[in-house]
Amino acid sequence: MEEVLAPLREAVKEQGDLVRQMKEQGAAEQDTGRAVAELKARKRILEAKELALQSKDDDVDRSKMEDTLKRRFFYDQAFAIYGGVSGLYDFGPVGCALKNNILQAWRQHFIQEEQILEIDCTMLTPEPVLKTSGHVDKFADYMVKDAKTGECFRADHLLKAHLKKLMSDEKCSAERADEMEDVITQMDNYSQQELADLFVKYAVKSPSTGNDLTPPTSFNLMFQTSIGPGGNMAGYLRPETAQGMFLNFKRLLEFNQGKLPFGAAQIGNSFRNEISPRSGLIRVREFTMAEIEHFVDPTDKVHPKFPNVADLKILLYSSKAQTSGQSAHVMRLGDAVEQGVINNSVLGYFIGRIYLYLINVGLSKDKVRFRQHMDNEMAHYACDCWDAETKTSYGWIEIVGCADRSCFDLSCHSRATKVPLVAEKPLKEPKTVNVVQFEPNKGAIGVAFKKDAKMVLESLAVSGESFITEQEKALDQTGEFTIEAEGKSFRLTREMVGVRRFQKTLHVEEIVPNVIEPSFGIGRIMYSIFEHSFRVREGDEQRTYFSFPATVAPYKCSVLPLSQNQEFAPFVRELSEALTKNGVSHKVDDSSGSIGRRYARTDEIGVAFGVTVDFDTVNQTPHTATLRDRDSMRQIRAEVGELPVIVRDLANGSVTWAEVESKYPKFGGQETGKKE
Amino acid sequence: MEEVLAPLREAVKEQGDLVRQMKEQGAAEQDTGRAVAELKARKRILEAKELALQSKDDDVDRSKMEDTLKRRFFYDQAFAIYGGVSGLYDFGPVGCALKNNILQAWRQHFIQEEQILEIDCTMLTPEPVLKTSGHVDKFADYMVKDAKTGECFRADHLLKAHLKKLMSDEKCSAERADEMEDVITQMDNYSQQELADLFVKYAVKSPSTGNDLTPPTSFNLMFQTSIGPGGNMAGYLRPETAQGMFLNFKRLLEFNQGKLPFGAAQIGNSFRNEISPRSGLIRVREFTMAEIEHFVDPTDKVHPKFPNVADLKILLYSSKAQTSGQSAHVMRLGDAVEQGVINNSVLGYFIGRIYLYLINVGLSKDKVRFRQHMDNEMAHYACDCWDAETKTSYGWIEIVGCADRSCFDLSCHSRATKVPLVAEKPLKEPKTVNVVQFEPNKGAIGVAFKKDAKMVLESLAVSGESFITEQEKALDQTGEFTIEAEGKSFRLTREMVGVRRFQKTLHVEEIVPNVIEPSFGIGRIMYSIFEHSFRVREGDEQRTYFSFPATVAPYKCSVLPLSQNQEFAPFVRELSEALTKNGVSHKVDDSSGSIGRRYARTDEIGVAFGVTVDFDTVNQTPHTATLRDRDSMRQIRAEVGELPVIVRDLANGSVTWAEVESKYPKFGGQETGKKE
Repeated sequence: MEEVLAPLREAVKEQGDLVRQMKEQGAAEQDTGRAVAELKARKRILEAKELALQSKDDDVDRSKMEDTLKRRFFYDQAFAIYGGVSGLYDFGPVGCALKNNILQAWRQHFIQEEQILEIDCTMLTPEPVLKTSGHVDKFADYMVKDAKTGECFRADHLLKAHLKKLMSDEKCSAERADEMEDVITQMDNYSQQELADLFVKYAVKSPSTGNDLTPPTSFNLMFQTSIGPGGNMAGYLRPETAQGMFLNFKRLLEFNQGKLPFGAAQIGNSFRNEISPRSGLIRVREFTMAEIEHFVDPTDKVHPKFPNVADLKILLYSSKAQTSGQSAHVMRLGDAVEQGVINNSVLGYFIGRIYLYLINVGLSKDKVRFRQHMDNEMAHYACDCWDAETKTSYGWIEIVGCADRSCFDLSCHSRATKVPLVAEKPLKEPKTVNVVQFEPNKGAIGVAFKKDAKMVLESLAVSGESFITEQEKALDQTGEFTIEAEGKSFRLTREMVGVRRFQKTLHVEEIVPNVIEPSFGIGRIMYSIFEHSFRVREGDEQRTYFSFPATVAPYKCSVLPLSQNQEFAPFVRELSEALTKNGVSHKVDDSSGSIGRRYARTDEIGVAFGVTVDFDTVNQTPHTATLRDRDSMRQIRAEVGELPVIVRDLANGSVTWAEVESKYPKFGGQETGKKE
Repeated sequence: MEEVLAPLREAVKEQGDLVRQMKEQGAAEQDTGRAVAELKARKRILEAKELALQSKDDDVDRSKMEDTLKRRFFYDQAFAIYGGVSGLYDFGPVGCALKNNILQAWRQHFIQEEQILEIDCTMLTPEPVLKTSGHVDKFADYMVKDAKTGECFRADHLLKAHLKKLMSDEKCSAERADEMEDVITQMDNYSQQELADLFVKYAVKSPSTGNDLTPPTSFNLMFQTSIGPGGNMAGYLRPETAQGMFLNFKRLLEFNQGKLPFGAAQIGNSFRNEISPRSGLIRVREFTMAEIEHFVDPTDKVHPKFPNVADLKILLYSSKAQTSGQSAHVMRLGDAVEQGVINNSVLGYFIGRIYLYLINVGLSKDKVRFRQHMDNEMAHYACDCWDAETKTSYGWIEIVGCADRSCFDLSCHSRATKVPLVAEKPLKEPKTVNVVQFEPNKGAIGVAFKKDAKMVLESLAVSGESFITEQEKALDQTGEFTIEAEGKSFRLTREMVGVRRFQKTLHVEEIVPNVIEPSFGIGRIMYSIFEHSFRVREGDEQRTYFSFPATVAPYKCSVLPLSQNQEFAPFVRELSEALTKNGVSHKVDDSSGSIGRRYARTDEIGVAFGVTVDFDTVNQTPHTATLRDRDSMRQIRAEVGELPVIVRDLANGSVTWAEVESKYPKFGGQETGKKE
């Protein structure tokens, strides 16, 4: 296997070295961009080959799994009776319960454990907020339209598919194929005009009608609406939940009595108007996220609880490994932080906690990795970023992002609103500093600028030292200077403003906190759990089940009377009521059908345990019933009065099935196998 | 008191009798409408007087309460640093935790207890769905605009305020005042044109600028957006969660193995673009709802668990009491159903369960009532409807609706989509029925109508007996007839369609289930809890607290070291970790400040219990700490190892404070009163 991969690894390394060299030598941005795109393309080829060569033993039968998910209404297309809307899904009882349990486990694992401040903000967001965050200008994909029918396509997807088709033509020359391969490689780097030229060059038409296409236009992925009746307050549905934590930073800091570090979190829906949604739950238009913003002192990025996770051994795919053609490899988290592979122990701590959470809710250890963003992938303000990825039948997909976003977000909102979003930090020793500030004559400014006066004063108040010094010079030489505020110019004279320089003793300093942002896509985590836990019973292709951990299983327990005989009814009722009292979600199935068939039905939706009432329950004292473990299908017998507590303890993980089995008599009577 | 109210009661009764009489005599709808409006106006006057005459002892100091809610960030205006958006609120850590607990209690009380099928549908909704439900056409208020500035006002609110101002003028004649009073009374009944005339007649101008106003226009309260990139799929943010349950009815019925009755539920956000939001959390633009749709056989509206709630004594305000000038009065639920005050025991059961839930989450028994809709208030399809109302400083406000909506919703969607939304019910004995149906010649219809053929065939397939018989006559006489489908006409001849009559033996019958819909406004419930549980410590106006029940309290427990002495730290850590392990949400407050002051801070946000680590904890073995009850401020002492379990049991209600107090030694040492 390594033999096949070696040349591919070498190709990646070669290109990685080239990129590094170009950056060191300060090559033109465009040239570096192209080299990076080539590097990514080589990485993709290597990764695809690696995946193809890996053992197929644990490959999931996706269509069989999706059939179960649809048939048992885990989730399904929304508005189906009205023809459906792509990218929108409804979760049925099983999917909804699973999702709630995944979120509940998240609250327990993060919010409770770390004493994080959970908040709940509106999804409706006025435009200026998202203008500041960059979403209004940059959160877009290029799109082309069928000139006659108006059907829309994502430009890059369509161009790529078109080129692949041309390349597969026998008549396509090797030279031309290379050229097209190059275009596909560079796809992410093209400007709007370059894309337009390529559509013309390769004569791309609408794949559904053959009609001409309009030139590519930028399509913003946010859903727009209008807030209030006036029609003049543009708003959007939020594309992420993070902004809520930034906007409430001051209130949260105050709630935390002014102290850093602290974490804030939010669980809620976000929206992206995808041009052409596909891949089921992986790319949808409305989805649930859970995001944490952990605010820290930038000079103190050390997490006191890091030792708790330092010994975890996790599959890491560092930026360096990626650019030198290596595979991801297992590393001790403590070593990764010590060696600087992970930037700091706060980021390292969250990587460890995210890993534990993902395993806890049912992902397979060997199908989870953390991939570091390469320099060029990372937002310019971020100082390190790792994605948790899971291996699925779609390849490795991102399910959690974990970025150190430095002070970017708070700084942007602070600049836009002129509200200082800072924390105060006591200085070890008081410090004397030189202060330079404008000294405005409020009266004169008021007379000169009327209702704009407030804006002018604010601008003067937030000016930095170098700006002030520059204007001071102008004031000395010409007696005036000009400032800009909200698109207008204001001429200020010596009568309106002076400059004051003085010394001040400080006992605290103001700092803009940095933020570490773990951001979870709940739908994608859920989908990965489906793939990692879908099983077929040995020797019976028709019997499938989901081996969800009991903590997230949609129902913890089923209660089944052996038959519809009325003698069983009071015991079923007693068990059901006691389970409810113990907070154990369960499902009574007293329909007709053999017990084996009903076990299969409950296994199919991943119910963790099953209690069955049989004739011994009715006829013997003390009354006992059987308890069955879904994964092993093994059974024990225990008293009806004891069972609800046993199931409760199994479900919340305070006892294991092995412990239960060792304590109670085994039972092997009812389930007579698949023939039933 | 009754002396003052008697004439008012008589006035209501008189008008109620008049309305009844008019209805019996089949008076013109408009006349009845006016009489009903007068009846409502008289009711309002009676109710206002009743409220005014009641004891003021338990009136909440709203501004003091709101100051606490804002200062401790229970919730606050969203986007405040960007100037804020009215009608949008963010919940801070305390508000969010309280809200989560209210929802968790709801899941426990309804979903778990009744084995309801919870689902989770998208908020984005395509237009046709809301066209069917009536929201596109009818979910609107009238609005007027300032002709120059474009500022918008709700027409009825503005006209009312304007008339009140005119009436308060000394120069206003009694006659003219009466006339205006009459307009206010009839406000809800005016058409768009009548409203426009009134704005002209009373010369209403913009209250902010004095400018002219545009004539009233209808403003739809849904937020509109566009789904997908084409710009041709209009969509809205859902105005309620209910539609999701109706659209998924078939899947849910199948999930329930085809059996009735069953309940489906959804918790989620809904949106209403209010013209001028006010009253804090009571009228907002984005809010959380929890709705149940309980589907039942219309011929079997009997709830087997009704006896469990039949003995509850609840304040009921029946339609009859309202139209005859009586007050609400306490009634045994069983009697109300038996006497037909409540239409059926399914509705009665939910009223009982809703009542228990509301008390459970912290509302005062004497400030909760159920008010029945009067005939004219109720949607035409509903057969009975009761609102749970709470008494607040805004008067009685609706917080939960509980309606029997008959088969309305399923029928509408079925008609619009041609998908049968029915359940099958086994017949006691097989039944032979006469069937009449069109017998189409598919080939001929295909040739004649091409791509419309499918639509024509569908129309023929869903035609009812009387329509078929009528067309059969036409076919006999003229050889053809015409049908309409989606706005087009189709001429059908003898060659294309015939009529077939035959007999069929049925073993099941298809029924359209009826639906009972309890619908909860979570924000309003939460606000009511604030008002009902806000307290001031006797003898100290400055110390306020919320007496939330432990089950919903935002934090169950605080952990406080007596001072910042480092010796306390290990015990604080041990307690915090053990509380986390027991799933008890808590807040460590190790800030400086006397213990009394910190108790006051935790009381202020309604933390239910407090554990304090003091010198006895450190110096004595076994190590003990104190546990304090928020409401009584009484304290006991117990071992550090025992306390987390005691708090857990107190928080989930399995033991009471009285029981804890009787078991452990009392303690009265640390809290030295308000002077500290």
